[in-house]
Amino acid sequence: MMSIAVIYGGTRPNGNTECLASKAIDSLKVEKIFLRDYKILPIVDYRHSPEGFPFVEDEYDSVINQALPHDTWVFVTPIYWYSMSGTMKNFIDRWSQTMRDSRYPGFRSQLADKRAFVIAAGGDHPKMKGLPMIMQFQHIFNFFGTTFEGYVIGKASRPGDMVNDFEALSAAADLGKVLEKYQ
Amino acid sequence: MMSIAVIYGGTRPNGNTECLASKAIDSLKVEKIFLRDYKILPIVDYRHSPEGFPFVEDEYDSVINQALPHDTWVFVTPIYWYSMSGTMKNFIDRWSQTMRDSRYPGFRSQLADKRAFVIAAGGDHPKMKGLPMIMQFQHIFNFFGTTFEGYVIGKASRPGDMVNDFEALSAAADLGKVLEKYQ
Amino acid sequence: MMSIAVIYGGTRPNGNTECLASKAIDSLKVEKIFLRDYKILPIVDYRHSPEGFPFVEDEYDSVINQALPHDTWVFVTPIYWYSMSGTMKNFIDRWSQTMRDSRYPGFRSQLADKRAFVIAAGGDHPKMKGLPMIMQFQHIFNFFGTTFEGYVIGKASRPGDMVNDFEALSAAADLGKVLEKYQ
Amino acid sequence: MMSIAVIYGGTRPNGNTECLASKAIDSLKVEKIFLRDYKILPIVDYRHSPEGFPFVEDEYDSVINQALPHDTWVFVTPIYWYSMSGTMKNFIDRWSQTMRDSRYPGFRSQLADKRAFVIAAGGDHPKMKGLPMIMQFQHIFNFFGTTFEGYVIGKASRPGDMVNDFEALSAAADLGKVLEKYQ
Repeated sequence: MMSIAVIYGGTRPNGNTECLASKAIDSLKVEKIFLRDYKILPIVDYRHSPEGFPFVEDEYDSVINQALPHDTWVFVTPIYWYSMSGTMKNFIDRWSQTMRDSRYPGFRSQLADKRAFVIAAGGDHPKMKGLPMIMQFQHIFNFFGTTFEGYVIGKASRPGDMVNDFEALSAAADLGKVLEKYQ
Repeated sequence: MMSIAVIYGGTRPNGNTECLASKAIDSLKVEKIFLRDYKILPIVDYRHSPEGFPFVEDEYDSVINQALPHDTWVFVTPIYWYSMSGTMKNFIDRWSQTMRDSRYPGFRSQLADKRAFVIAAGGDHPKMKGLPMIMQFQHIFNFFGTTFEGYVIGKASRPGDMVNDFEALSAAADLGKVLEKYQ
Repeated sequence: MMSIAVIYGGTRPNGNTECLASKAIDSLKVEKIFLRDYKILPIVDYRHSPEGFPFVEDEYDSVINQALPHDTWVFVTPIYWYSMSGTMKNFIDRWSQTMRDSRYPGFRSQLADKRAFVIAAGGDHPKMKGLPMIMQFQHIFNFFGTTFEGYVIGKASRPGDMVNDFEALSAAADLGKVLEKYQ
Repeated sequence: MMSIAVIYGGTRPNGNTECLASKAIDSLKVEKIFLRDYKILPIVDYRHSPEGFPFVEDEYDSVINQALPHDTWVFVTPIYWYSMSGTMKNFIDRWSQTMRDSRYPGFRSQLADKRAFVIAAGGDHPKMKGLPMIMQFQHIFNFFGTTFEGYVIGKASRPGDMVNDFEALSAAADLGKVLEKYQ
C-alpha cells in the first residue's frame, strides 16, 4: 500500500510554494500536513545527556505520527534565507530526538524505506541560490537512505507571482506524473 | 570603534562548537550572545499583508539589539542536519521582519557594513557535508553586502570530541588572529 | 539583432546530451559549434609573464570567433566526472588568454552582454551530483556579468537512454520556448 | 608500505598553488608528478562503441603508471574558472578509459583503496567560490570509494601572493602533519 504525505513548511496560507505544489498534487490523493498549524519547538540537544531527551510539550509527535504511515514524503517549503523555513527546520531537527525515542524504535529504518521529493519557491534567483538547500536535503536523505526522487524550484516573491514561472509549473506538473504511481 | 559579537546557535552549553569557537575568541574582547537563552519564535510571513508584520511576543528584539552595535559578527553553530541549528535559523529568518520594522530603519545598510565569520562543528563529514551551509551563509551575507571573511568547520560528535580535530583547532586559532584587529 | 550559439562539449556524436539539447533547439535558428571538431589546447598560464601569452597553434580562435557574434550562448555538455567535459573546460580556460589578447579588446564586456543557458546530462544522479557544475557555471557567468537564464539536467548513461527521462525532455522543451524569443 | 604521489595540475612552474603545496609536503618523501610535463589529450567517449576505446597516442599511461603505486594522492591544482585546471580535468576524464582498459583490470578497486587530498589556490574568493570544485572532487572520490581526507584552499592571484594568506599556509602545514604518517 503506497501513499503520500505532503509536508508544508510555509507560514502564509496559499503562498507561492503551495501554489507550485498544487500543480503537482491537486489531482492526487495525498495527506496534507501544514507545519504552521502545529507548535513545534526547536530541538534542545540532549543526545549525550545520561538521562536522554526530556519530554517536550508541543505538537511535534502529532505531526510525525501523521507523516510516518506514508511512504512518499513531499517537502514543500518556501526558501527563507536560502534554505528551508525555520518552521520546517525545527521539524526536521527534532528527528534527532525521535531517533532516540523508545516510542519510535524503527524510526531510522522507516525513513530508509521512504522516497522523498522537494518543492520550493523563492524570490532571489532560487534556481541557483536554492541549490545549497537541495544539497542539504540530499545529505539528510542520504543519512537515512531515503531515496531523493526529484525536486522543483520555482521563482516567486509577491503573492500570485508563481503563475509567471511557466517552467516551474510545468516541472511541477511533470513531478505530479511521477507521484501518480505512488498515491 | 570596532567590536565583536559572537552569536551562538548551539543548544547544549559547552558543546563542541563552543569549544572550537573558544579557540578563536578566548583571548579577545567580545560580546557573547547565546540564542538558547532567548525565546525566538519562527517567523510568520506577513511581508505582503497590508497591515504588515504584527508585533511578536518573544525576545528576538533583545537579541538583535545586542548584536547590532557590533560591526563584526561571528556565527557559531553546530551543524544540525547539514545546516545551522533551527534556533539560529529562527533568529535569521526574523531578519525579514526587522527589514520591514520601522523601529530599525537602517537595518539592511547596517548589515552591509558588517563583516561576518562562521564557526561550525558537526559529526558527519562536516568539512564536506557542511559546505552547503557555508554557501547558504554566503548567500545571506551577499544579500546584505556583508563581507564574509572566513569560516572554520570542525569535526566532533560526542562531548569533548573537538579536542581531537587539531586541524580545526589550529584554523580557529588562526581565525582568532584575524579577529584580533576587529575587537 | 539577437541570435543563438549552441556550444557542444560532448565527444560522441549524437550523444545523450545532444539529444536533450535537440529537444530545446530543433525548431530554432541557431549556430551549432561542436568543440570536438576543433583542436583546442589546454591553457598555459602566462598571465603574469612580462611577454604575456604566446600565440597558440590551434583552432581556438576559430571557435571563439564563431561564438562571439551571438548574444545567447547555450552550453551543452555531458557531465564527465561531475563537471563539464575536459574539451569544454579547455575552451573556457582559454578565455583567460583572450581577456588579455589585444585582438579581443572588448572580450570581457562582450560577455557581460550575453545571456547563457546550460544543458547537461550524466549517468550518476546528475540532478544532484551535477549541481556543483551548475554552480561553477554560475560563478563563471557572474565573473563576466553574463546573465544565467536557465539550465536543464538530464539522466542518461547508455546511448539512447535520454528518451526515458521525460521530465528532462519536458524541461528542455520549456527551455526551448524561452530560447524562441532570442533567436 | 605507504607512499604519496603529488599530482600537479598547474601550468606555471612555481605558481601559487605549488607554493601552498610545498608548505604541506616539503619535508616529506613524495613522488611529484607535474601534469604539464606530459601530453594528455581530452578523452573521446567510446564507452559505448562495440570496439571500445582506441589506443591514444599521448603520455597519459606514463602518468597513471607513476601514480598508481602510491596509496595517497594529493591533487594540487590552481582554480581555473572555479574548477580544476583543464590539464587536470583531461587527466581525470581519461580515467573513464582506464576503467575499461584491459591493461588496468583492478583500476576501480585500486582507487577505492587510496586516500586523497586536495590543495588548491585561486584569486577570486577561492574559499567560497572554490567549494563547488571541492564538492566535485568529493563526488569523484565517492564514485571509487576513495577516502577524501582533507583539503586546503588558498587565496592568491599574482606570483608570490601566496605568502600573504597565512591561514592557508598554516592549514597546509597542518595537512602536512596528517600526510607525515602516510609517507
